[in-house]
Amino acid sequence: MRDEPHLAPRPANFRPLTPLDFLDRAVASFADETAVIWRDTRLTWAEFGAVVGRLAAALTARGIGPGDVVSVMCPNRPEMLAAHYAVPALGAVLNSVNTRLDAAAVGWILGHSESRLLLADPTSAEVARSAAEKAGVPCETFGEDTMALLSGPDPAPFDLTAAVTDEWQPIALNYTSGTTGNPKGAVLTHRGAALNALGNVITLKLSRDTSYLWTLPMFHCNGWCHTWAVTAAGGVHVCLDRVEPAAIFDALDTAGITHMSCAPVVLYMLLNDPRAADFRPGGRVTVASGGAAPTETLIRRMEALGFDFLHLYGLTESYGPASLKEIAPGQDPEPGEKARLLARQGIRHATANRIAVIDDAGAPVPADGVSVGEIVLSGNTLTAGYYGDAAATEAAFAGGVYHTGDLAVVHPGGDIEVRDRAKDVIITGGENVSSLEVESALHAHPDVLMAAVVARPDPKWGETLMAFVELRPGSDPAPEALEAHCRERLAGFKIPRYWEFRELPKTATGKIQKFVLRESARAAAEAGE
Amino acid sequence: MRDEPHLAPRPANFRPLTPLDFLDRAVASFADETAVIWRDTRLTWAEFGAVVGRLAAALTARGIGPGDVVSVMCPNRPEMLAAHYAVPALGAVLNSVNTRLDAAAVGWILGHSESRLLLADPTSAEVARSAAEKAGVPCETFGEDTMALLSGPDPAPFDLTAAVTDEWQPIALNYTSGTTGNPKGAVLTHRGAALNALGNVITLKLSRDTSYLWTLPMFHCNGWCHTWAVTAAGGVHVCLDRVEPAAIFDALDTAGITHMSCAPVVLYMLLNDPRAADFRPGGRVTVASGGAAPTETLIRRMEALGFDFLHLYGLTESYGPASLKEIAPGQDPEPGEKARLLARQGIRHATANRIAVIDDAGAPVPADGVSVGEIVLSGNTLTAGYYGDAAATEAAFAGGVYHTGDLAVVHPGGDIEVRDRAKDVIITGGENVSSLEVESALHAHPDVLMAAVVARPDPKWGETLMAFVELRPGSDPAPEALEAHCRERLAGFKIPRYWEFRELPKTATGKIQKFVLRESARAAAEAGE
Repeated sequence: MRDEPHLAPRPANFRPLTPLDFLDRAVASFADETAVIWRDTRLTWAEFGAVVGRLAAALTARGIGPGDVVSVMCPNRPEMLAAHYAVPALGAVLNSVNTRLDAAAVGWILGHSESRLLLADPTSAEVARSAAEKAGVPCETFGEDTMALLSGPDPAPFDLTAAVTDEWQPIALNYTSGTTGNPKGAVLTHRGAALNALGNVITLKLSRDTSYLWTLPMFHCNGWCHTWAVTAAGGVHVCLDRVEPAAIFDALDTAGITHMSCAPVVLYMLLNDPRAADFRPGGRVTVASGGAAPTETLIRRMEALGFDFLHLYGLTESYGPASLKEIAPGQDPEPGEKARLLARQGIRHATANRIAVIDDAGAPVPADGVSVGEIVLSGNTLTAGYYGDAAATEAAFAGGVYHTGDLAVVHPGGDIEVRDRAKDVIITGGENVSSLEVESALHAHPDVLMAAVVARPDPKWGETLMAFVELRPGSDPAPEALEAHCRERLAGFKIPRYWEFRELPKTATGKIQKFVLRESARAAAEAGE
Repeated sequence: MRDEPHLAPRPANFRPLTPLDFLDRAVASFADETAVIWRDTRLTWAEFGAVVGRLAAALTARGIGPGDVVSVMCPNRPEMLAAHYAVPALGAVLNSVNTRLDAAAVGWILGHSESRLLLADPTSAEVARSAAEKAGVPCETFGEDTMALLSGPDPAPFDLTAAVTDEWQPIALNYTSGTTGNPKGAVLTHRGAALNALGNVITLKLSRDTSYLWTLPMFHCNGWCHTWAVTAAGGVHVCLDRVEPAAIFDALDTAGITHMSCAPVVLYMLLNDPRAADFRPGGRVTVASGGAAPTETLIRRMEALGFDFLHLYGLTESYGPASLKEIAPGQDPEPGEKARLLARQGIRHATANRIAVIDDAGAPVPADGVSVGEIVLSGNTLTAGYYGDAAATEAAFAGGVYHTGDLAVVHPGGDIEVRDRAKDVIITGGENVSSLEVESALHAHPDVLMAAVVARPDPKWGETLMAFVELRPGSDPAPEALEAHCRERLAGFKIPRYWEFRELPKTATGKIQKFVLRESARAAAEAGE
């Protein structure tokens, strides 16, 4: 074919990809259908579109325009969802802040991101105001209910996508939880967000029949892009600003929930609630779990309640999901096998990303389930880079792929399985120990609710293993019993030398804060305990 | 936010969008799962990937490389599906040719597209060879079965996407039936094809549970991009090279079909088959119908057989689907109302396209169900333009939108419904026929002074062709003579079924008043004449 000038892209056949188009379509096409459910409020797509318009107008009135960073501290209320549309519709950049951070951490993020405004809901207001004051950033808070934003005259119609002039334009600036020192601000683009959202539609099988329960915080990597994916599919967002069993059971009973996402800790909370005993599901619910693998017991008990698992793996830098593991259609292995399979990170996510496990020389490791390498990513759903940090960006993309720092094997058939975070490897007496392997062994003990194993500095061995164990209510095993349990399952050097029974510190998304435990272990070692 | 150089796109986070990525993922992720079913053959994704590799190697051996146009005349066999991947994987451009065209029409396309090679299956071989010889293009035919292509040693692994260096690169060159004389070659890009395919996943709710029966010819606008969409979802392609009731019922019985696409005529064929009486569906089947609206009777009878309707509207220039009408979740109107709703073209397709109905001044018509305007499209799933025809391209995109030539109303709520086609296209049995082309053929007959061909409503074919002919004074041909004349010049489906010899109604300026003739044709159909 000859190259012809009249075949070049033109505005009629080339528009910047953006998740804002999904809302534009939903408002235009499903105007009178339910879009958002929150407490006793139901919003149609037309009404939710108006909320977005009102928020956009309010931001404009406060001087927000293209390129400005707008920070938000808010649980899963409709304003938070609306911010995912109103902020980028102005060409501005959404900076969702973890509501569990303290004022110092929030202030640091506000400063680093050069935020122009911090919005906060009442539950976050105190920390937000303190942080904003320190950082010299204006702060505004929503009311206890959203009526101020939801009611009032309809805003003038406006083109949601007019401010998106380039699909590489930033849509979000998400700070990673930062296991070392200060967090890094991952820049996400309109293009990547739209494509990851479409990938989620495929992976989660979202559709107009979907009713999505917001147990996953939207501030966690834009709710893994589900904030935009559910809208792309024309499904219903069921907002939940308090992730409590009663609220979850209520939603399951009344809102015909088909999907939810969360860390396993949320599911344990459900199972330990008295209502679990009587709960009869109206239909199957797909749970996209992340952060930790579901155990056999968890799978068995949740299935009885009507929940099917899907395991997602990803990072803030990959817009959330980079891979998934699901039980293949038509297969129904017994729970033990299912747990074994669902512990895997699986195969790559659906839209245009690549996942590989490479050795130190950059070559793919064999798919033998044994050879360990680093998971690296490439494709269209990877961060543009770290804001204000060229060095970290270049380091992360060294060799032309994104380095996750996660160590994994590739099983025959292609499933990836994480063996350890590079930094979660404990080296004792010259031997590498995967903390995950030891934790898995501990999770098989009936008295253990959750366990975390970290390195404890040791003058003789370099590092030894220290286990922090959260017990099931009512159980009280001796450390010797757990040691014996481990000895049946693990080599001698993998058995923890030190034990502490306590509630484990967790992030807002239920991930165990290992750095806190490492600090405890270090302090204990220094104190000679 | 400041603009920072290290945040610019790089190969690790910006890859050209291409549907080839969907196959790459399926082969990597679902290697041992069923990809394609054809007659007694089942191919896994690994095996289908190998077929694609073999076809690509065969094309390379024949000198095909980037930018070359490869033409294919083939019903829905695995080779045809494989061509949708192998040809673009070489950076070449797929030109699918309607297998019902005659040698003259095919030869014209081969010449205009500067095709480098014509591939044909045995049923198309005769026409293909004749056309290729005239056009001076090499022609190769597949065997009666595909074993030559399916068997043999596995080809060397190759990167399916390596030749895609720009997402605006052409993936297909599809010739429209052409309202004025010769057809036009719509250029489709990798970006548009990938996005329309993702839109289809959403619209049709395709997933890994999908078993898609290929009743729609893949040569029709790349099977509305379902050739790529089913792969994106990880579903199964059930190929059907003869669209006959027995084969369709067999597939429904044995392959767990969940989806199919076709014109209503295919469904009438099914209903008229003796097996319809005893047919009991294994599960519901979604039928995406296009080309004509399903009637109340058709809907009622098909629902009893287990089929649910979805109405798609689009053009070759819009990669197939540009809009859809479905019955909203939770609603189940009675069949008459359903037929009324499903006659609409509905709302815009899911990925980043816009649809509007505008008046002569370019303003949107009110959503009153009465005001008629022209349907115009914009977005990411519109042709790059017409190959070798800058004038037609600029005309189609006049005013910064793509002009479909279809006249429609907008109903309250946003549904679009076509009232008439500005261009004189007749859709019969799912095939587009240009009335102008048929009229031109008639004008070549010595007895014909003037001819007008219009659509006559038909319960089976949607529309059939009715010719109104004004004869030269003193001539008195039999309709059979004109039919024979047409048969020499036109494919069978383009020959008028009904004839009327009369003086044609004309405007003051001598233009034929086609709307009067359409009214006559409609009245004749209703009277059963």
